Order: sequence, then structure tokens, then C-alpha cells
Amino acid sequence: MTATPPPGVLCPALTPFDASLKVNVPAWLRFCRWLISQGVGLAVFGTNSEANSLGTGEKAEMLQALLDDGIDPTWVMPGTGTCALPETVQLTRLAAEAGCAGALMLPPFYYKGVTDDGLYAYFSEVIQRVGDARLRVFLYHIPPISQVAIPADVIERLINDYPGTVAGIKDSGGDWDHTADLIARQWDGFRVYAGSESFLLQTLRAGGAGCISATANVNPAAIARLRQHWQESGADDRQAELDAVRQTFQQFPMIGALKATVAYFSGEAQWAVPRPPLAALSAADTQRLAGQLQELKLTMEGLG
Amino acid sequence: MTATPPPGVLCPALTPFDASLKVNVPAWLRFCRWLISQGVGLAVFGTNSEANSLGTGEKAEMLQALLDDGIDPTWVMPGTGTCALPETVQLTRLAAEAGCAGALMLPPFYYKGVTDDGLYAYFSEVIQRVGDARLRVFLYHIPPISQVAIPADVIERLINDYPGTVAGIKDSGGDWDHTADLIARQWDGFRVYAGSESFLLQTLRAGGAGCISATANVNPAAIARLRQHWQESGADDRQAELDAVRQTFQQFPMIGALKATVAYFSGEAQWAVPRPPLAALSAADTQRLAGQLQELKLTMEGLG
Repeated sequence: MTATPPPGVLCPALTPFDASLKVNVPAWLRFCRWLISQGVGLAVFGTNSEANSLGTGEKAEMLQALLDDGIDPTWVMPGTGTCALPETVQLTRLAAEAGCAGALMLPPFYYKGVTDDGLYAYFSEVIQRVGDARLRVFLYHIPPISQVAIPADVIERLINDYPGTVAGIKDSGGDWDHTADLIARQWDGFRVYAGSESFLLQTLRAGGAGCISATANVNPAAIARLRQHWQESGADDRQAELDAVRQTFQQFPMIGALKATVAYFSGEAQWAVPRPPLAALSAADTQRLAGQLQELKLTMEGLG
Repeated sequence: MTATPPPGVLCPALTPFDASLKVNVPAWLRFCRWLISQGVGLAVFGTNSEANSLGTGEKAEMLQALLDDGIDPTWVMPGTGTCALPETVQLTRLAAEAGCAGALMLPPFYYKGVTDDGLYAYFSEVIQRVGDARLRVFLYHIPPISQVAIPADVIERLINDYPGTVAGIKDSGGDWDHTADLIARQWDGFRVYAGSESFLLQTLRAGGAGCISATANVNPAAIARLRQHWQESGADDRQAELDAVRQTFQQFPMIGALKATVAYFSGEAQWAVPRPPLAALSAADTQRLAGQLQELKLTMEGLG
């Protein structure tokens, strides 16, 4: 897609809905611009974006609106993986044609226990059908939610058959040994992103690319700063500060807590509401979270 | 949708693809007509239809083609559940407007560990948005694959709030005690379908409605016959015969084996091919399966 390397920190940007649960595109664009201003790229349509509660048509329209808004596509890595080959191809093609930093691709996640050959064939078909030299695929490994892993053997086969196109991975398995193993394989130019900033410093020290993390929605600047200055003194202290924020959010259902935080700092109450089956944070949890945000001195300056 | 009760046996009709993996609609319509001629209804867009490897637009076009083909909609119960509220509403509305026997609805299956309230809110939103008195929702409980169950408390709340609309369930959990418990609750007019004909006689004797089963693709007439004559002598022997066929298929990856069987009896080799991530049955397994079909004396007369 481009010679510019993708950002070292990307954010699965949250998706705001209006009172009728339609995507509030203007509010979303404002939030995306704010994230960019904080130094993080946009992994729109991630798990924490409720991407899988959005229709393929909705995602296509949103991506077009984002590009029309003038955001630099080299800072955008949309999630394009769905369960169905034609829809994944449709979204991935849009990303490639727009010159996006990449397409972050879930495995098809309905059928469980699929074979390595079947998984390889799926990704291979997508790449061939998109058929665009600009395409950069970042695989999205998140077995706790997708329940379908992307085994290293499948990754290696894809890299061998589509060198340069299969460009990296987001590892949201939550298992550092697995991330370290992927980095240690030293596939040529392959960028390994941790799925949480909890592993950011470890990832960078091992030779990885950075992180794509839910909590970049609420703490982007600090995460981007550590990514930039990780070789400087005090990096471990900075990592510990990131960990404290992350741990606060991990006490709550993540998406509800992130959306409640954006509602809190933007003053737009409707931000708190996800699409079902996800639910807004309870009033009690929202209050408890607000107290902890004050203790952490977390702010989201410039938002709203 | 209609006063006619839905069929007692429905088949999650397989979906044939052409060499470019597009849906072969004419071959699919021929197969659907053959299934109807064997006495089973069409639960098109089920798990074994590879529904989740089809795009929402593809499913909408296929359903329209089926109705345009003149098939009685009271024999059709399409799967309409996707991960995203707007797409589920779109497909469910089509089913209601066409006067289908019902809409068989998966829970949204990407996010795991969702709350009962969130799951209730999802189904409730779909029903309200479709807003059609003809709608009959059949919940699709298949935790081994969806990894998201539909708890009895959620079902009861939906029945209470949408009486007559929430009309039944397909229980593909594979746990007879769970199916028996649902039947024993005796919700007014609520139809419980077993997810496999292995439980057909048990289901009917307990007061359930019938079954919606993968193997109805290859053994429809015998399953429909037992459903019709279950109170006659010899029913246990008929059940044992069904079990022998089912057990044969359970030795193989189910969808690959079913498609190989249709390819075998129709003489159309392309029938054997699923969309990735699923794979066609291996040549060795296909040969082994063919031998077993001969032993079982299974035929699919009139097919092709």
C-alpha cells in the first residue's frame, strides 16, 4: 500500500452510536481525528470498535467517510476480516485501493476446529481476489474471542507464498511466550504488534513493532510516547504507568468501560452506549470507574 | 407469518458453489426442490449450509430466488442471524414479509461472555425493528459452534414479552437433558426442535416438534417418515436405522461428507467443494465414505 512503515501504536477506535443505534459518523470522525492528534494510528473496525456488530456496508461507508475527511491513509489499518470470503474481499479491497497502512484481518470465526489448510486457503483466496500490489495484510490472532487461532505454520506458509503482502500480526492471545515466539522467528520485514500495551516494552525489546490496544482509546498519548522513547531511561517506569491505567480498565467489561470514559470526558452521554449484545457499563460501575480515573489523574484533553 | 404449523423436519440445505466459489443458484434450487419432494422443509442458511461463509447480500438474493422459484414459503425457515443487528434485521424482515415458516436466529456470536440482558436486548431489538406480526422467531442454540448459548431465562423473557412471535428453538447443543428441559417447560405453543435426528423419537415422545438436522440433506425421506409415523409400531427400529446413517457421517467432517455424498449421487463433482475455511473431504475419506454408503444401501433417488 505504501513505503511508509505503519504507526508503532494503533488504536481500535471506539464506534459511537446515536439514540437509534445508528453509527454517529460525525462523532466518530471527531474521535478519530483526536486519536491521530495524540500520536496513534487508527485500527478502526477492531474488536473494541464493535466491528462485528457493524454490517459490511456500514464499515465500507465509514471507511470512505474517514478517507473523505482527509485523514492520512498511512495512519489507518482497518479491520477487514468477516466470516464470509466475499465480504472480507470487499472491505480489504477498499483498504488496499485507498493506500491504507494495512488490512487487519480476523480469521473467519464461525466454524471451529478448521484445518490449517482451510485457514491458509481462506487468506490466500482473499489476497488473490484483492489482487493489489498495495495490499498489506496484518493477521489478527485473538483466540480468546475468535476461538479460531492462526497457527505459526499457516503464517509462515502465507509469508512464503505472499512475501511483502503478508506483513505482520496483532497478537491478542494474551500469552507473552506466544508473542515472543513470533518475534523470534524473524520473518523478513514481518511486524509483530502486541494486543495490549502491557506488553509494549517487552515487545519492542524483543524486536517487535509496537502494540494495537483497546486502552489506546483513553490513554493514547502516553502509549505513543513510550513507543517513541522506549530506549531512553525511565522506560520501565513509563511502562508501569501504562499498566496502572490498563489494570483499572480490566476490572470492568472493557468496551463498556472505554465508552463510559469517552462519555465522561467528552460530556456526550450517548457515547456510553454500545450495540447489543454488548451493554453499557452499569451506573454503579460508571461511578466507581470515574473515581479511579480521578485517582489515576487520567484526562483526555482536547476531546469534544 | 402463517397459521400453518412449520414442518416437523427441516433440512439446513447445503449450498453448492461453482468453480469460482460463487453460489450456484440453479443447482441450489434443484436441490431445494428435491428436499421438498422428500418431505422435509428448508432451513436454508443453517450451519451446514455454510451460511456464515455467505454474505448478507448473497443470502438475501438466494432467498428471493427461492421464493421466485415458487417454493411454498411455509416450508422455508431461513437462518437470519448474523453478528450485526442491522444485517440480522434485514434478513429477518425478508423472511417475515415473504410469509416464511419462521426465521431461525443465531445469537450474535463474535463477542463471548455477553450478559443475559445484552442477549435479550439483541433479540428484542431485532423483533421490534422488523415490527411485523407475521414474524415467527426460532432461536438457534448451538453453543459448540457459536460459543454463545441462549439461556432458558432469556428465552422465557422473550416469550413473555413477544408471545406468539418467539415461537420455538432448534437445540443443537447435543445434550438431550437440555432439550428435555426446554420441552418440559411447556411454554405455550413453543416448538422445540432437536438439532439432530438422533434425538427425533425422544423429542417427539417428550412433546417436542421434530428435528432440524444436517443429515436430512442425505437421508430426508426416512427422517420425514419417522416424524410422520412415530406413534406406530416399529418406530424404535426406524430410529435405529436413522442412527446408523447419522453415525456414518459423524466419522467425517460433516459438511465435507454431506457435500461429497451429494456429488456422488448427483454426478456433479463440483458439489463436493465448500468455501474456505472449510475443505472438501479428502480423496481417501471420500472413497471410504462411498463404501459405507453402499453398505447402508443409502440412495438419493431423483436427485440430479
